[in-house]
Amino acid sequence: MRKIKIYDTTLRDGCQAEDISFSVEDKIRIAHKLDELGIHYIEGGWPGSNPKDISFFKEVTKSPLFIRAKVVAFGSTRKSGNPVRDDPNIRAILESKVEVATIFGKTWDLHVRDALKISMEENLELIYDSLAYLKSNLSEVIFDAEHFFDGFKRNPEYAVKTLKKAEDAGADWIVLCDTNGGTMPHEMVSIFEKVKKEIKTPLGIHTHNDAEMAVANTIMAVISGAEQVHGTINGYGERCGNANLCSVIPNIKLKLGLNCITDQQMGKLREASCFVNELANLKHWRHQPYVGESAFAHKGGIHVDAVRKNPETYEHIRPELIGNRQRILVSDLSGKSNILYKAEEYGIDLGSKDTATRRIVELLKDLENDGFQFEGAEGSFELLMKEAVGKRKKFFDLQGFRVIVEKRREDEEPISEATIKILVGNELEITAAEGNGPVNALDNALRKALEKFYPALRDVSLVDFKVRILDERKGTEAKTRVLIESGDKEQRWGTVGVSQNIIQASWQALVDSIEFKLNRDIE
Amino acid sequence: MRKIKIYDTTLRDGCQAEDISFSVEDKIRIAHKLDELGIHYIEGGWPGSNPKDISFFKEVTKSPLFIRAKVVAFGSTRKSGNPVRDDPNIRAILESKVEVATIFGKTWDLHVRDALKISMEENLELIYDSLAYLKSNLSEVIFDAEHFFDGFKRNPEYAVKTLKKAEDAGADWIVLCDTNGGTMPHEMVSIFEKVKKEIKTPLGIHTHNDAEMAVANTIMAVISGAEQVHGTINGYGERCGNANLCSVIPNIKLKLGLNCITDQQMGKLREASCFVNELANLKHWRHQPYVGESAFAHKGGIHVDAVRKNPETYEHIRPELIGNRQRILVSDLSGKSNILYKAEEYGIDLGSKDTATRRIVELLKDLENDGFQFEGAEGSFELLMKEAVGKRKKFFDLQGFRVIVEKRREDEEPISEATIKILVGNELEITAAEGNGPVNALDNALRKALEKFYPALRDVSLVDFKVRILDERKGTEAKTRVLIESGDKEQRWGTVGVSQNIIQASWQALVDSIEFKLNRDIE
Repeated sequence: MRKIKIYDTTLRDGCQAEDISFSVEDKIRIAHKLDELGIHYIEGGWPGSNPKDISFFKEVTKSPLFIRAKVVAFGSTRKSGNPVRDDPNIRAILESKVEVATIFGKTWDLHVRDALKISMEENLELIYDSLAYLKSNLSEVIFDAEHFFDGFKRNPEYAVKTLKKAEDAGADWIVLCDTNGGTMPHEMVSIFEKVKKEIKTPLGIHTHNDAEMAVANTIMAVISGAEQVHGTINGYGERCGNANLCSVIPNIKLKLGLNCITDQQMGKLREASCFVNELANLKHWRHQPYVGESAFAHKGGIHVDAVRKNPETYEHIRPELIGNRQRILVSDLSGKSNILYKAEEYGIDLGSKDTATRRIVELLKDLENDGFQFEGAEGSFELLMKEAVGKRKKFFDLQGFRVIVEKRREDEEPISEATIKILVGNELEITAAEGNGPVNALDNALRKALEKFYPALRDVSLVDFKVRILDERKGTEAKTRVLIESGDKEQRWGTVGVSQNIIQASWQALVDSIEFKLNRDIE
Repeated sequence: MRKIKIYDTTLRDGCQAEDISFSVEDKIRIAHKLDELGIHYIEGGWPGSNPKDISFFKEVTKSPLFIRAKVVAFGSTRKSGNPVRDDPNIRAILESKVEVATIFGKTWDLHVRDALKISMEENLELIYDSLAYLKSNLSEVIFDAEHFFDGFKRNPEYAVKTLKKAEDAGADWIVLCDTNGGTMPHEMVSIFEKVKKEIKTPLGIHTHNDAEMAVANTIMAVISGAEQVHGTINGYGERCGNANLCSVIPNIKLKLGLNCITDQQMGKLREASCFVNELANLKHWRHQPYVGESAFAHKGGIHVDAVRKNPETYEHIRPELIGNRQRILVSDLSGKSNILYKAEEYGIDLGSKDTATRRIVELLKDLENDGFQFEGAEGSFELLMKEAVGKRKKFFDLQGFRVIVEKRREDEEPISEATIKILVGNELEITAAEGNGPVNALDNALRKALEKFYPALRDVSLVDFKVRILDERKGTEAKTRVLIESGDKEQRWGTVGVSQNIIQASWQALVDSIEFKLNRDIE
């Protein structure tokens, strides 16, 4: 069976999106997630254009964790006038210590003339020199034929000539790019067929979504012979985005019946999609094909009835194949079975006819209406279930807190101070602490007050802190959801709080975090 | 030139989306907007299944405003056992007083057997009776061949038989539906070609986006002979949505070179897309093809440079054709050329060799290293540029502020209060205000203090408030970036603040927001 190679460029082309900005640490975490997913090539960045990307390659090449993926550095052909070995961009690629490089070059005569402002002949030399030199230093070199489809439509002869130069220089792959995203699927097929007659090097495809055709064009290219597909998780990318790998992968496997990643890996597709979205701090797109929350949601009447008799009636694939699930919106049945499943996972015994189950379902509905969300906040969810069955133990009572933020001069950072009063058993503890901000001050004060009674809290630290504004259009009156991730030596847990007041929302999540730890410890 | 008829089902199939719910009033307003846009058919609802839709037809048929569009009522074939003239669903269509009806019927044998639970023969009778009866009462009848592609793949003979029945009954159009959205573009072409050999009635296409193929499949169907296309504004619809007319229309006109709505009407496409989103109370999708805020936004230095020389280099169409515009973004990926372009837009004269330009570039790099991001914060960026050329005017001096959040009982919401001291000219103003949270309190206090001196601030309101934690792994010590969007009667602007202290970050963004307004007003 044909095996299509998946090439992810979330960390390079994906970061061209207006709303995407990853830290080096984010990029490393995403690279590991992509590796787990079975992605074959991970393009990590453009070391010649971006200092952040240089740090990424420094970090990533240290890591022994890559079991399958090849990490790729991206760059342009050498600049006109530069000898190839002295070109800073080419040098940056070699300095990044990767084994594979992707080099983009101009194939559209308009760009050679108007953007590079050099002769058609010289552009061919840039392509040849850059690829040949890199090939002599690396194990694999990929040529990214920028604007190939637009170039081919205007000047097919020249466009093909650039590919032939890359072939002559020893490129292992030639990837045809629809850089501006304006190509239609039928053009994709006819151009691919023509190129295949001229070029023997294995071909790849890189598309953009400006005409809402990125996934379709990728699939048509695969049908026409592309062996490598470029794309990004969730379709992130400049303007309207790149080809969305979360749709491309299941289409290749389930619709074309070809091989790429394994079935087991594909079962983690939704998880990977959500993970990358979380790090990008973007809302997950509810209606996203395959992996969206609504992708297999049925809203009532005829559809629900039919789907319960036979899911095939209104579902084009089985949602579990990509780690998604069917949702029936009119009934709380799906909610209940989900809770039973979760409860089992946490070792809590709830019979399905138990009044506790019903109580949890009701409580959950109310909380979700208020903006709570328990994905990534299993700690709070577990406490909720323990409370419903009377198993949640309380470790302290809050008597009150006060947080003060004061700024005394225009050019001075404000100071933050929190005072807290709690009762543990019969003992009243009053304490105060400073912090870098109001939440940090409150966090410090709470720990200071409790550590005396519960020394195990010394091992707990806050790992992650996320704030999301719900109903953003209400300005500073909007509700705020705070998600906290905490950890000790053994495990990590997430907790959540929601309120119009960010301090109150943070307080809820902080208290849950501590109570989760203490409840776990006494088990 | 072939003229493709556009059939909008935003008001019926679009409302199947999990997050869409229009009032009757909303639906009337949208129908008028669609009419202005030159849409040929507006499917208003399913009067037989939904009382809200009955009111819609009552309202809409009163209105004299429809200059072009035909309003369509939707429904199913009669129920097994019901004589057609007594079938409540068929009667509801006639009572809705429309001239055009669309009737869906089963074409997939699986559904006839498992969902309807009737014989294959009886299903054919339902189709014939319903269409023939409606055709004798209305001027135009459309047959919606539900699940046609899935049906055809399993039992082509029966699927085509259902279409022939509709043809015999006098249907004016036969619309092939990819109800489950799992069809690939090449299958679309081959099935369409086969159907065309058997059916003489004009064909239409109705697709869903479950495999991210809705727009591609629609376009491939048009190439294969479809004369009517169904879709929704912004692709609203059940699960992953329907074909997105905001992409289908420009693809038909600009990519296939066929006729549908006029050029002038297409110039209002972005406006219509935003309008419908507003009524749906959804955020406009930034990366939406053609009509999104980012669809013609350029971030990378190379791209910006090229696009300024010739927009065709990185834009597949001219954005004005669909009422959109080019945007140049400012970020760490970009260089001097972006800043020059921005400066020009704001009427600030910076020669590229100007030391001010260099100063801004340096300042920007430092700020971005600190976590500032000026995408979506053009207000702060403009103030920065004004400052660099000595044109930023100051309107007040902060002498200090204090924010207190106090919680007095465990089950009580905390109260938030801000005190502020500012100097305007020689006048000292001290004031205090409460709020739903610390930022809201500070916002209220600042406005209260300033409105006395600058009454124009009364028109300013906060539209959007976003918080992002940078370096999330530092827990509550992490840096926070606050993005604020403000607006008055005329325009909107975004401002940004970054600090470890969320109150300080919000303060910066609030102050920029106000200073931006006051600086603009004196120009």
